[in-house]
Amino acid sequence: MIKIGIVGAAGYSGLELIKLLLNHPEAEIYNLFGNNSVGNRIEEIHPSLRGMISKEILSFDEKLLADLDLLFVALPSGQAIPYVKSAYENGAKVIDLGGDFRLNDPNDYNKYYKHEHTAPDLANIAVYGLSEWNELEISKAAIVANPGCYPTSILLPLIPLLKENLMDRDFISIVSYSGTSGAGKSLSENMIFSEVNESVRAYKVGNHQHTPEIKRYLSMFGCSEPTFSFVPHLLPISRGIYTTIHAKVNDNVNEILCMEIFNKYYKHAPFVRIIYPQIPEIKNVTYTNYCDIGFSIDNGIITIISTIDNLIKGAAGQAVQNMNIMFGIDQTEGILKCSKKKYLKVQSV
Amino acid sequence: MIKIGIVGAAGYSGLELIKLLLNHPEAEIYNLFGNNSVGNRIEEIHPSLRGMISKEILSFDEKLLADLDLLFVALPSGQAIPYVKSAYENGAKVIDLGGDFRLNDPNDYNKYYKHEHTAPDLANIAVYGLSEWNELEISKAAIVANPGCYPTSILLPLIPLLKENLMDRDFISIVSYSGTSGAGKSLSENMIFSEVNESVRAYKVGNHQHTPEIKRYLSMFGCSEPTFSFVPHLLPISRGIYTTIHAKVNDNVNEILCMEIFNKYYKHAPFVRIIYPQIPEIKNVTYTNYCDIGFSIDNGIITIISTIDNLIKGAAGQAVQNMNIMFGIDQTEGILKCSKKKYLKVQSV
Amino acid sequence: MIKIGIVGAAGYSGLELIKLLLNHPEAEIYNLFGNNSVGNRIEEIHPSLRGMISKEILSFDEKLLADLDLLFVALPSGQAIPYVKSAYENGAKVIDLGGDFRLNDPNDYNKYYKHEHTAPDLANIAVYGLSEWNELEISKAAIVANPGCYPTSILLPLIPLLKENLMDRDFISIVSYSGTSGAGKSLSENMIFSEVNESVRAYKVGNHQHTPEIKRYLSMFGCSEPTFSFVPHLLPISRGIYTTIHAKVNDNVNEILCMEIFNKYYKHAPFVRIIYPQIPEIKNVTYTNYCDIGFSIDNGIITIISTIDNLIKGAAGQAVQNMNIMFGIDQTEGILKCSKKKYLKVQSV
Amino acid sequence: MIKIGIVGAAGYSGLELIKLLLNHPEAEIYNLFGNNSVGNRIEEIHPSLRGMISKEILSFDEKLLADLDLLFVALPSGQAIPYVKSAYENGAKVIDLGGDFRLNDPNDYNKYYKHEHTAPDLANIAVYGLSEWNELEISKAAIVANPGCYPTSILLPLIPLLKENLMDRDFISIVSYSGTSGAGKSLSENMIFSEVNESVRAYKVGNHQHTPEIKRYLSMFGCSEPTFSFVPHLLPISRGIYTTIHAKVNDNVNEILCMEIFNKYYKHAPFVRIIYPQIPEIKNVTYTNYCDIGFSIDNGIITIISTIDNLIKGAAGQAVQNMNIMFGIDQTEGILKCSKKKYLKVQSV
Repeated sequence: MIKIGIVGAAGYSGLELIKLLLNHPEAEIYNLFGNNSVGNRIEEIHPSLRGMISKEILSFDEKLLADLDLLFVALPSGQAIPYVKSAYENGAKVIDLGGDFRLNDPNDYNKYYKHEHTAPDLANIAVYGLSEWNELEISKAAIVANPGCYPTSILLPLIPLLKENLMDRDFISIVSYSGTSGAGKSLSENMIFSEVNESVRAYKVGNHQHTPEIKRYLSMFGCSEPTFSFVPHLLPISRGIYTTIHAKVNDNVNEILCMEIFNKYYKHAPFVRIIYPQIPEIKNVTYTNYCDIGFSIDNGIITIISTIDNLIKGAAGQAVQNMNIMFGIDQTEGILKCSKKKYLKVQSV
Repeated sequence: MIKIGIVGAAGYSGLELIKLLLNHPEAEIYNLFGNNSVGNRIEEIHPSLRGMISKEILSFDEKLLADLDLLFVALPSGQAIPYVKSAYENGAKVIDLGGDFRLNDPNDYNKYYKHEHTAPDLANIAVYGLSEWNELEISKAAIVANPGCYPTSILLPLIPLLKENLMDRDFISIVSYSGTSGAGKSLSENMIFSEVNESVRAYKVGNHQHTPEIKRYLSMFGCSEPTFSFVPHLLPISRGIYTTIHAKVNDNVNEILCMEIFNKYYKHAPFVRIIYPQIPEIKNVTYTNYCDIGFSIDNGIITIISTIDNLIKGAAGQAVQNMNIMFGIDQTEGILKCSKKKYLKVQSV
Repeated sequence: MIKIGIVGAAGYSGLELIKLLLNHPEAEIYNLFGNNSVGNRIEEIHPSLRGMISKEILSFDEKLLADLDLLFVALPSGQAIPYVKSAYENGAKVIDLGGDFRLNDPNDYNKYYKHEHTAPDLANIAVYGLSEWNELEISKAAIVANPGCYPTSILLPLIPLLKENLMDRDFISIVSYSGTSGAGKSLSENMIFSEVNESVRAYKVGNHQHTPEIKRYLSMFGCSEPTFSFVPHLLPISRGIYTTIHAKVNDNVNEILCMEIFNKYYKHAPFVRIIYPQIPEIKNVTYTNYCDIGFSIDNGIITIISTIDNLIKGAAGQAVQNMNIMFGIDQTEGILKCSKKKYLKVQSV
Repeated sequence: MIKIGIVGAAGYSGLELIKLLLNHPEAEIYNLFGNNSVGNRIEEIHPSLRGMISKEILSFDEKLLADLDLLFVALPSGQAIPYVKSAYENGAKVIDLGGDFRLNDPNDYNKYYKHEHTAPDLANIAVYGLSEWNELEISKAAIVANPGCYPTSILLPLIPLLKENLMDRDFISIVSYSGTSGAGKSLSENMIFSEVNESVRAYKVGNHQHTPEIKRYLSMFGCSEPTFSFVPHLLPISRGIYTTIHAKVNDNVNEILCMEIFNKYYKHAPFVRIIYPQIPEIKNVTYTNYCDIGFSIDNGIITIISTIDNLIKGAAGQAVQNMNIMFGIDQTEGILKCSKKKYLKVQSV
């Protein structure tokens, strides 16, 4: 059994982590840590958990790390550093679901996250947890920086096509829509129901913190840096991200070739479904760890569409997938229910 | 392994059944039967299932029943009879998720379901699958009539208090609100998004088909027949039922006594959570098999509130719970993820 | 032209007031007052108003009252008293949309609103603005206490039937569901979109501040006090209240008699529509000042259903209706668009 | 008074037309025509209208045209031709809210609307009703083809910038999201609430019927034809369109220049609000005839965002605006409520 601690269990990603781990045959939730929630029981914070788990939320204590094999940190970006540092120094593996270890240029933290980074050395050690593209590194990592929700929905469809030079790097349009749980439980007037419902708004146009993350990892995974514009929008739904990408394709690129490239990279990926010629829908992936990808070429322009559940493949699900990789377990364990021993991969050219 | 067939896999309850059974260690989905959907693969009908199951939907054939231990029938009310009959005659156990075997007075079918009942003898044999109140009968049943979603949310909180004479039988007010999936995939103008969204409406006031079901089973489970009015409403959400009940309580009845009565009957019930003095919320039970019950007494009137997921505890979840009972398996198997071998029952007086 | 000031223009009711008054041929919005919003322009606070009105929000100043014929106060309950007092002392008429002048027993403020009432003498002078039942008093009032949203939806259907002794006073069940705008813009974790969406919850069971308001005015408008239980619920929609009432009817009461009674009182009421035998739906009244009422009798129990837009008939619309009454204008002016000079009243027995 | 007939009053655009015209001082709704709804009263079809209008829906009869000054046709595309033809031949002006008179190449009807066009001569006579760009032609028109909802939200922001050569014509990305009322009341399984709610899907990728409309009118209004990709998506809200456009800007183009260009064309346009540097939100335009436009330039790429209410500026509101232009009335009459005689235009560089 993997003995697990969670910092930030009171949030939405924390809740999803707990639900996944309760269903995982090799995981044991050992300690829950918090700040404001210390002294409460987790089933009081998340009444949906009543009857499934009963545990007091503790104040973080370095000594308790000795009992743990793995610490998940599910805090708002900017708060994870001391916990990750402590775990690292005490020999526990860590998966950070926030943004504090995804970038390596400290200036980017100042610019996009609006705070200094106090442990740039650890940010350099951390391994980016995009499971499908970094499996080997993740398997050896001490610190995993779990990807952001938007980047997961963008990198998975973009990397194969850019890496294989199918698209014009000159100008790529990325338009993403996200449900509200991506903003966590933070209080602000523009997140109350009456303000969000029956509306849509773009936000952080030109300066979202996921922009440098997308840029860095496109480059790291073999795509010479393209010029792109990324615009996130807020949707009046609770869960799910929908990303629509436009780019010019190079001559002689057609849909069959795209399908071949996607198959080359994702044929054996249990959580990426290339559903061409169907069109992805958010409801087909919510409450799952899947990323569904569709595409279409018309008039020299490719439209690529992808969708994930921001709390699962975009957070807790990919984190458990990474845990499985780090501990040498089948990466679908505790995440995918399927009818055969081995998961089905149904796509074909 | 229990070999299972499903009639009506293309509907919402069918989809939930498949998801639950894929996660059940002792269940094997063997055959899927349909009418309009015959020849399609189930993962085309429900794209969310891609990668988890791949199976063609067959035309129902009595001969295939020989391979099956259990047939689930998840059809709109009025369509189940031939399938249930065929299974019964061929020795396969059956759980019908529709309304065709819940009532025993043929006139009630004419009045509430607007059709003749063609197998009243089988309706008399069928056992009502309210798991918490009929476990012994279910364990021996050949045909289980799975309860309606509204009645499940109403009978679970009402039976203990009425049975123990805490409430005035003279007049009980029952107001229920349901998400749209309760109406299935049937096409009608008043179910399109633009008509349902940002609105609420009561419907079938005074003549909903669940009224005789509630009446019959209150009586069967020990409550001499009360006079009640039941008004169902349509909510602009996908899943969940919220039931608010008002009644006068008898003298000397207080909240502590109510808690004791609920504990008497539900202390060991894994899927009923008495959450007094908290107030139930739909979101705490969606995607689970729980029924959450709260209550409050003020000025001689009790307010009882219960909530379930209409597709799980109100349909597929209770059906799998009943399957477990019929096959001698722990009733939580495949349904409840929890942190201990045995589920937790946290309520106490 | 009626010269108008508004305190609390930054809130939801304030916004609706402004929209209604911009469309009113005899109203002129003269001054907008605020606290936190002072110095901002109203079209910055409510960007939907850009192009329609451009006005700076001022700090309240008693001297400016001399310019005004009428002051609307649209603040959270507990904050209106100094403004109402100041207007009263300076000879401007006032309509308070909050709860500070609806009750006359100071203990009720302590118990339900959780604060002392500092001007009980004014609370005694204030006239309750239930337009359909208090027109004469309103026409002469210096201070109008505009009704609460729930009480409006409850009193309008209940008063006629109770006043005429059609119902058993012994026990009346009142179940109301409200959209989120009823809670204003106040920040609390349980009002953020992710918490409200796809859920329902009852709240303040047994102790909502509208309970004493309902009780007081049932009595004032001729109904000897009945015993009732009122349970409010929060709906995942922005606007609208849906109220379902159950009571036993007295012998010989039938639906035709109810219709006659409703016609007796509401035949000439421009904003009450008795839609028997249809069933009210929230979407038919949102963005209007209508209260739609339906009913049905079955088995000796009457089900009465009413619906309003909480921000219009439940707040700003009824306030403008009251303004019309106070200033001797046709009460539909600026509120009702209709095809004839006189509004249509279509119901008949 | 302008005597008005409406064909298709039972639909969503028809309902909005009626509401706007009831509030219009110079309009009189004279006849309502229908097919399936003939013999019903309009207030039975749209219960929200009860008390405001009471009129029977008639079978269309050419003879009744003599009484009319103007016929609105609000039918699904493909059904308007006989009505428009009949009105044209009988001397009544016509505004068609559907797509039957927007294109002039009959092949486009075959390709995008899937039917033959039976009156190509009339399609050539029809004037495109994009009020802000075609006022002179509209004022003289016999037949106005009211613009599609998506094209309205796309042409208004794009024309000024393309006309003035600010953007690279080589590749423009257009991503639009629409509420469900854009699909009318048509019945299909994928429009029921349970399928649309909590989800998003792109549709008609590469072959939406608004693509040739956008292309034709960009060219007609002075933009040499750009290469663009337009992807519409379905949103789980009732009303509103949100369009996000990406393009490379030419050298030396900055935000101040864009603002100047927008002001050049829209300074006096009562229904276009350039809200830079704010970001448009759907909720600021729903139930209004406004188009809100925002923009931002970053890294050589411009992001342009626009939003409208698809039923108002995208249908009935723009239709009434066109009626005003056709009959020499101030174009805001009956549509815009504002605090001064003349509407406010608040934007400035």
